[in-house]
Amino acid sequence: MPDTIPRNSVGLVTPQTRHFDTPLTLDCERVLSEYDLIYETYGKLNTDHSNAVLICHALSSDHHAAGYHRTEDRKPGWWDSCIGPGKPIDTNRFFVVCPNNLGGCKGSTGPTTINPETGKRYGPDFPIVTVADWVRSQARLADQLGIERWAAVIGGSLGGMQALQWAIHFPKRLGHSIIIAAAPKLSAQNIAFNEVARQAIMSDPDFHEGRYYEFDTAPRRGLKLARMLGHITYLSDESMRTKFGRELREGKINYGFDVEFQVESYLRYQGDSFVDRFDANTYLLMTKALDYFDPASAADGDLAAALKPVQAHFLVFSFTSDWRFAPARSREIVKALTDGDNPVAYAEVEAHQGHDAFLMPIPQYIKLFRAYMNRVAEEIA
Amino acid sequence: MPDTIPRNSVGLVTPQTRHFDTPLTLDCERVLSEYDLIYETYGKLNTDHSNAVLICHALSSDHHAAGYHRTEDRKPGWWDSCIGPGKPIDTNRFFVVCPNNLGGCKGSTGPTTINPETGKRYGPDFPIVTVADWVRSQARLADQLGIERWAAVIGGSLGGMQALQWAIHFPKRLGHSIIIAAAPKLSAQNIAFNEVARQAIMSDPDFHEGRYYEFDTAPRRGLKLARMLGHITYLSDESMRTKFGRELREGKINYGFDVEFQVESYLRYQGDSFVDRFDANTYLLMTKALDYFDPASAADGDLAAALKPVQAHFLVFSFTSDWRFAPARSREIVKALTDGDNPVAYAEVEAHQGHDAFLMPIPQYIKLFRAYMNRVAEEIA
Repeated sequence: MPDTIPRNSVGLVTPQTRHFDTPLTLDCERVLSEYDLIYETYGKLNTDHSNAVLICHALSSDHHAAGYHRTEDRKPGWWDSCIGPGKPIDTNRFFVVCPNNLGGCKGSTGPTTINPETGKRYGPDFPIVTVADWVRSQARLADQLGIERWAAVIGGSLGGMQALQWAIHFPKRLGHSIIIAAAPKLSAQNIAFNEVARQAIMSDPDFHEGRYYEFDTAPRRGLKLARMLGHITYLSDESMRTKFGRELREGKINYGFDVEFQVESYLRYQGDSFVDRFDANTYLLMTKALDYFDPASAADGDLAAALKPVQAHFLVFSFTSDWRFAPARSREIVKALTDGDNPVAYAEVEAHQGHDAFLMPIPQYIKLFRAYMNRVAEEIA
Repeated sequence: MPDTIPRNSVGLVTPQTRHFDTPLTLDCERVLSEYDLIYETYGKLNTDHSNAVLICHALSSDHHAAGYHRTEDRKPGWWDSCIGPGKPIDTNRFFVVCPNNLGGCKGSTGPTTINPETGKRYGPDFPIVTVADWVRSQARLADQLGIERWAAVIGGSLGGMQALQWAIHFPKRLGHSIIIAAAPKLSAQNIAFNEVARQAIMSDPDFHEGRYYEFDTAPRRGLKLARMLGHITYLSDESMRTKFGRELREGKINYGFDVEFQVESYLRYQGDSFVDRFDANTYLLMTKALDYFDPASAADGDLAAALKPVQAHFLVFSFTSDWRFAPARSREIVKALTDGDNPVAYAEVEAHQGHDAFLMPIPQYIKLFRAYMNRVAEEIA
């Protein structure tokens, strides 16, 4: 392994793809006749297939959760802080699987895929997928990989919602559900932010009702705005103050509309770099999956009743400065679980990084996460 | 007065306009050779001109603070809850003046005005104006109206910043400064939201670098997005929950991108109605005035030092659920004032309405506001 790759990394990884040709009926009642899921794995599956862990990704991430695709890569996968040898999700002990979700734009079937029925990209014709749809498709991937039961299903944010849905949907197929920086459903304010992001994309003249591929363009302005707005909600007010304050890029006010404050420069950069690597139709789908997630709705709004089938043990993390999914939202999940006498550990981690904290190597978080995962590893040993 | 106009209203009002032909040098060092200010007045100026009160407006409001322009008007002015006979700013006792700020789009000189030097609308050539520029222009209006000293200068949000700036800039020209739901400067997060709003407007293909009037169009999509985003920050998470929750407009999920949740419908409506009545260049200017406001910067960041010249008495209001300018931000002003031994009354009002609370007839707020203003009235009686 080259010197440039840290020793506690999973190293160079290569994504794999599985094709599924059993039709999948979605919550929207439409049917995907066939589809691909791209995924990465880290670590080795043990002989009794008991050490597999599923990582569920959030809105804009993908299957590349850890390690490097090439030695030249500037950055590792999105959750490299938590996945690797000796890390909380220890690849010396666990076989880690991370798929790109259906509707994604990084290799799994989604809006950018050619629709076999038309010979053209799906675009806006790709069905709206839900968290439950993802869980069902992930279960089929587990089947193909010979994994009857996950030692744990783990995710942050929208990924945490999938970890919760797994416990409801396939109670016998996971030992632990680890739900980080999530909520049992979006608030009106959460939906409102998603709606502004969607309107930014859909009102971009280059959107062409989602058929922008055919026009050899993309709603870059809209997607950039959506991403800039997203970033505000991922950071806390405090972390923005620490990171940027009111610092001026040129040290003085210029009385113009070019970048003046450092925070403006950061947001524009984040927005610009995102549009080069993400598909706008996928972004729209992911926000809808978030909006629709509400497992309690199947039980007249009673989350504890909706959680009745679960058998997993739960670990729930929240972060004090997260205002996108504040600790109170995580506590709703914890309360519903304890109301049903389900085993649940809950940690509210002191952190100034906001929602993004779940991706960060915050010592208290890493320590608790590692301790819990060690217990999971001992159970299956 | 027609039956439809409530008895505690100031009734029918007619805006007036003053022309100023003494050049005004702005903070950006550019000079407005001449300009108009449109304003409304309510109540009567007393013989010694001691009962005048200045109302400063916020980002998207104007000079029409109270009463009705026509009996058919569906709504009164924007602060009718607080201005009128028997209301906190009692027009039986006070002579109330509310101008539209320079750079505005409702009658005062701004981007939509014809630039006398070119014969075309200013558009993007209108200079960036600051809170201090507004205060200077308002002082000239006071001169023309024969008001040497305001009994009080009052404003909420960006209006509160003007009330604070007045006390610094013209210490002898006001008795009281009433600062509601404001902050001594924007946080990085506040600036970030403004930046997304600006990018939404400026990246709209119909913006034409601000010269959209010449193309007989307007960046409606961008301005709509800016307004939708603004509305999220004006409401609290709690008020959105109370107002909309996760209610679906048609009672069910449709798996599509049309309006589904009530909150989406509300935001789209707010956005659409705003673009019919507001100018995008003015919106850009107002956000910049907010970003730049930072009186402490003149004293190396020491707000108490910056406030040394003030002589006014202060009343500061904040609202518990306001997260745009949270109570902690108002307390920064209060602390700087008390550090300098300035008389200041502070009330943190329990309210679920978020930033918008300053416009609402919240009983505790109205009661305290009225009591304070009664004292002001007695001082000048």
